[in-house]
Amino acid sequence: MSDVRIDDLPVRDELRGKSPYGAPQLDVPVRLNTNENPYPLPEPLVERIAERVREAARGLNRYPDRDAVQLRTELATYLTKTGKYPLGPENVWAANGSNEVIQQLLQTFGGPGRTAIGFEPSYSMHALIARGTGTGWISGPRAEDFTIDLAAARRAIAEHKPDVVFITTPNNPTGNAVPPETVLALYEAAQAAKPSMVVVDEAYIEFSHGDSLLPLLAGRPHLVISRTMSKAFGAAGLRLGYLAAHPAVVDAVQLVRLPYHLSAITQATALAALEHTDTLLGYVEQLKAERDRLVAELRAIGYEVTESDANFVQFGRFASAHEAWRRILDRGVLVRDNGVPGWLRVSAGTPEENDAFLDAVRELKKELER
Amino acid sequence: MSDVRIDDLPVRDELRGKSPYGAPQLDVPVRLNTNENPYPLPEPLVERIAERVREAARGLNRYPDRDAVQLRTELATYLTKTGKYPLGPENVWAANGSNEVIQQLLQTFGGPGRTAIGFEPSYSMHALIARGTGTGWISGPRAEDFTIDLAAARRAIAEHKPDVVFITTPNNPTGNAVPPETVLALYEAAQAAKPSMVVVDEAYIEFSHGDSLLPLLAGRPHLVISRTMSKAFGAAGLRLGYLAAHPAVVDAVQLVRLPYHLSAITQATALAALEHTDTLLGYVEQLKAERDRLVAELRAIGYEVTESDANFVQFGRFASAHEAWRRILDRGVLVRDNGVPGWLRVSAGTPEENDAFLDAVRELKKELER
Repeated sequence: MSDVRIDDLPVRDELRGKSPYGAPQLDVPVRLNTNENPYPLPEPLVERIAERVREAARGLNRYPDRDAVQLRTELATYLTKTGKYPLGPENVWAANGSNEVIQQLLQTFGGPGRTAIGFEPSYSMHALIARGTGTGWISGPRAEDFTIDLAAARRAIAEHKPDVVFITTPNNPTGNAVPPETVLALYEAAQAAKPSMVVVDEAYIEFSHGDSLLPLLAGRPHLVISRTMSKAFGAAGLRLGYLAAHPAVVDAVQLVRLPYHLSAITQATALAALEHTDTLLGYVEQLKAERDRLVAELRAIGYEVTESDANFVQFGRFASAHEAWRRILDRGVLVRDNGVPGWLRVSAGTPEENDAFLDAVRELKKELER
Repeated sequence: MSDVRIDDLPVRDELRGKSPYGAPQLDVPVRLNTNENPYPLPEPLVERIAERVREAARGLNRYPDRDAVQLRTELATYLTKTGKYPLGPENVWAANGSNEVIQQLLQTFGGPGRTAIGFEPSYSMHALIARGTGTGWISGPRAEDFTIDLAAARRAIAEHKPDVVFITTPNNPTGNAVPPETVLALYEAAQAAKPSMVVVDEAYIEFSHGDSLLPLLAGRPHLVISRTMSKAFGAAGLRLGYLAAHPAVVDAVQLVRLPYHLSAITQATALAALEHTDTLLGYVEQLKAERDRLVAELRAIGYEVTESDANFVQFGRFASAHEAWRRILDRGVLVRDNGVPGWLRVSAGTPEENDAFLDAVRELKKELER
């Protein structure tokens, strides 16, 4: 029986020969590969989480609030405060990570016989979740400099008439933001073609030089903005993603969400973190300064760097990105090879981590020039 | 914009006119409608949860262990201890509730162009998750007394050649267990027909008079047993489901699981609960005694009762189950109308809650006989 392998099971054909998604989890002194926030939660917040979870645990024999109303209310308050657009709980939906939010959106608006488009390279989970939900995936174009070529993107939308359009801004793994007028033009193109749903993935928006696109929701019921607490809130381990949209969209995803998908413990922890928004956004400011320093120093060393509005920086170019990745790892620093030929991605860490990274790539540069 | 409704959005056709799954969450003195465990977690466990979550919160800026190895190890230890069959972490997979486990199984082994069968009435989420994953659903037969008619079930499998066969034992909402020899015969029928995966849903197995079917895993790589911490562990609010199967099945579901699907907080809480297994299984014994009392007293009052191996009891018959449900609710007791004509379901509560329920249905009986 020990010789039974995945491909001996009646798995779906498209899964044969595949391996699970995920960055290698290596034990290395400086880990700058998964865009985590390097700052642990402040101790008063840790205590507040323990307190709220203790309270929630006392009722853990009961199912959680299926609609997570209190959490959605607090998320709406946060968005209203920071996004310059008033939102209520009826505009917000939350799930276990923005991955689950996207999965629910594709189950509602994509799925078998339907298609979704993204402009690649971009967040690779969009394509993977499309596959997981039976949604056909269309790889849309991006310009050489990793911006979205509006004319080419419009043509792709007009040609394929996708049911769902993904726009990631700031984009991952390239780091650059998409100008609001481009998003608007793509929304119009998507409405003219189908109409389709447009999902703007703002996982990294708190690190941007520009503003959130939340105000674009006004009068656009086919627009969805997805967010996460993994990055700006320093809570990757919590798995709390959410979306803002017209209330009808929030109603619609409830047709596919698994009942009681969001645990009472997750709701309690997220509510505690939302009480400490100001402190956490203070860390964001530090990380933005460090991100800008990484961009400047990488350029000073002689690397090409893509403009970054995120908590990470894409740099290159390398004859072999994988070889460069390995040599940086040899120096105790783990960055990410996202499979973009010639480029690597580094997350903004603490000043000390960033120094270690910069030392490593300075040495690498000399080595490569020898 | 306020007049935009779900059906004005480009949702999938099969979602039009649907409403979200879920029991009404009403504020009623005695709630016996969702098979929750009526016993709150003991205070030492609540404290242990707060302690482990505090520790996990200190590293919350990092992604959780993607493979949840420690949790799977402890779940395997629990299954080995209680299931009379040795299992390791390689045999176990965990997710946010057994609903997500089932969703992952259907994404792996079902999906577009494939079908799944269940013997209805049974756990209605199987059919709903099939719909959500694009898996065709086949409603298999059950006998008048809610047992599985083996000959009829075999014929259904031979005819439809489903890719996934669900067997819920003890069955929900009827309460009765499926004899092991029936499960074995259906497994053989499913192998002869396709071969297909057989998912035995043992959400309520800890309440059964009989043993878990875990030992059947030996030599059967197409068998999956799904479990939950919602019921016996008194942790419905935690959303922790898991499965036991051949390691190849565990590898296969990792091709479709969302990366980092299980939060560090969930893993910490579940690990704390697993430290208190003995205490929690003590509550299970009390609930089994109460369940047996409910069966006996309901029969004494003059109701028909389906044999129960679960923490709930199906009783009837009523000319209108919904009308009976409403009249019991009028007496401050919330039970469940699962849509089985003539029958209602009551969860075993505390002795006081069960007394309140029995008083209510005693009065109802008199009323109906008037």
